[in-house]
Amino acid sequence: MDRRSFLKTSALGGTAAAATTLAAPAYAQGKRTLTMVTTWGRGLAGVFDAAQRVADNVTAMSDGQLTVDIKAAGELVGAFEVFDAVSSGQADMYHGADYYFVGQHPGYAFFTAVPFGMTAQELSNWYYQDGGMELHDELGQIFGLKSFLGGNTGAQAGGWFSKEINSPEDFNGLKFRMPGLGGKALGKLGASVQNIPGSEVYQALSSGAIDGTEWIGPWADEKAGFQEITKTYYTAGFHEPGAGLSVATNRDVFESLSPAHQKIIEIASAECHQWNLTQFLANNGAALQRLQAGGVKVMEFPDSVWDAFGQASKEVHEENLGDDLYKKIYDSAMKSMKSSSGWQNLSSGVYTAQRDRVLG
Amino acid sequence: MDRRSFLKTSALGGTAAAATTLAAPAYAQGKRTLTMVTTWGRGLAGVFDAAQRVADNVTAMSDGQLTVDIKAAGELVGAFEVFDAVSSGQADMYHGADYYFVGQHPGYAFFTAVPFGMTAQELSNWYYQDGGMELHDELGQIFGLKSFLGGNTGAQAGGWFSKEINSPEDFNGLKFRMPGLGGKALGKLGASVQNIPGSEVYQALSSGAIDGTEWIGPWADEKAGFQEITKTYYTAGFHEPGAGLSVATNRDVFESLSPAHQKIIEIASAECHQWNLTQFLANNGAALQRLQAGGVKVMEFPDSVWDAFGQASKEVHEENLGDDLYKKIYDSAMKSMKSSSGWQNLSSGVYTAQRDRVLG
Repeated sequence: MDRRSFLKTSALGGTAAAATTLAAPAYAQGKRTLTMVTTWGRGLAGVFDAAQRVADNVTAMSDGQLTVDIKAAGELVGAFEVFDAVSSGQADMYHGADYYFVGQHPGYAFFTAVPFGMTAQELSNWYYQDGGMELHDELGQIFGLKSFLGGNTGAQAGGWFSKEINSPEDFNGLKFRMPGLGGKALGKLGASVQNIPGSEVYQALSSGAIDGTEWIGPWADEKAGFQEITKTYYTAGFHEPGAGLSVATNRDVFESLSPAHQKIIEIASAECHQWNLTQFLANNGAALQRLQAGGVKVMEFPDSVWDAFGQASKEVHEENLGDDLYKKIYDSAMKSMKSSSGWQNLSSGVYTAQRDRVLG
Repeated sequence: MDRRSFLKTSALGGTAAAATTLAAPAYAQGKRTLTMVTTWGRGLAGVFDAAQRVADNVTAMSDGQLTVDIKAAGELVGAFEVFDAVSSGQADMYHGADYYFVGQHPGYAFFTAVPFGMTAQELSNWYYQDGGMELHDELGQIFGLKSFLGGNTGAQAGGWFSKEINSPEDFNGLKFRMPGLGGKALGKLGASVQNIPGSEVYQALSSGAIDGTEWIGPWADEKAGFQEITKTYYTAGFHEPGAGLSVATNRDVFESLSPAHQKIIEIASAECHQWNLTQFLANNGAALQRLQAGGVKVMEFPDSVWDAFGQASKEVHEENLGDDLYKKIYDSAMKSMKSSSGWQNLSSGVYTAQRDRVLG
């Protein structure tokens, strides 16, 4: 039984560990297909698009020598099982949000977003210049993954609520969907936090299993249809100021590829980090207008709530700083963020404020 | 005489037009080398790096089947001659700032930056989602070029001055280096505006041929050494809020490449648009601190000067709106900018303001 057949017939997760002992397959007739599992339902706006773009560009740039076969969440393994599936060799690669895997290591949160953390631009600066990519790789060595950023949603909206939030106490007992360390922070405000894959959130919200949810932003949220259920929408959020998505390849598989194909995966992923961000940012403005025209009330959290978010986020980071690698990643990210945000304020910040003032 | 020999021995610019009649060369032994001329002196911080990164990634992703031979400004043609050299077929491709070529068509300004125009993120949103790339291509069809964004400096600093600027009148008679439409706007304030390639600016400033200059930002400016000549530095500027750099390939040459190699050039260029921006943004903060430690005085233009910049920029745009293609590009860019900037203010803008307030 060859490796592909074995993997296709193996139980989801159960026998996956055995696959690590199998040699990575050689190129057959000079061509090779990699199976990419994802944390996204098929066609989910923006996020599935990112997986598709990476796959398409890998195929195109390799002249079809390396093709990527995408499996949506549930088609091979469930959304939150992709990490273990690729780590074990059950699948070749995944596209997903790494903060779903804070259970494997809390440091993975930084490669999506952490509460009160980096904007998309600050994440890029850190990742591509200030050591972020190398730290992503250090985590990957533990779990047998070769990871690259491969998408970004931009700053995520505060989310959809069944009621207005006027004080931190309004989170007490609220059943809310929020993954990653942001969710852990919200839990400190008394919320009952749940982690639910994107393709299942609409059902959870409409059934009343949850009182509210964050998902991404106006464009993706509108496509998910949350405005059909509730009309109270907070635009700015504390939890994911610039959420990166990742392309992770099983490390043995990656090392078995030619240097050219390795570089193609790296550059296709990085290109998609930029492209995917523009996709969200170019579509959010018009989507928000449509939502408002449909009766959605756009809100901002009051300062007292932001203060509580800040305190809770600080506590969550402090709880993890005992882990040496988490601390190493945290220190690296915060140092980079402070350095690049200062210049951003002085240059782009002053410019856009003057542009708004002068052009009105 | 084959095409390569012809091009290598042809006079700079003089006989270039004749080359357009030559057929693009086929792949020899499956390999091909493209000559890339640039608007940059060899090793010029950030901008030459971007050309080098595109070249390296094209070579790596094509497994050496397509290599790029970079010529710095002056090595094959002068900095401002690269457009005509590639358009005519004297060279295969260029890396440069397209606003150097507003003389060929003023619409090229938008693919670097226009005064009171788009930030780097807004440029990306427009280029990759809202029709910018297609308009770049429409210009390229006129001149026989296939162009992609392939670098970005971020928001450029206001620049280096021999005196403080306290009112618009202080620009009257000032000899200042500023390319593109920003330079034309500054001319309306009475400045004597000059366009000088990057590698020649230091000499012009130190000799007194110019009273001041903008170049890029703290990191690249420090490397250029302007702080050795003057200590008055304005950080925010109106003229290049997010300056894109371009990779343009002769259209016949591009069309003679395999689809895989075409895609490799496209994606390598796009990846460099992101990477290069992070290079500048990650380095500017620390560079500004060093400049200040060395006695450089960091300034901001007063509102009255920003008002004058705004009025002059408006006049420059209006002077060009009679050109149909310029108007088409202007309308497309401004529509995209307005849409994406609104959401940016509501999401990232609110978030970073709250982060600054809460974290102090």
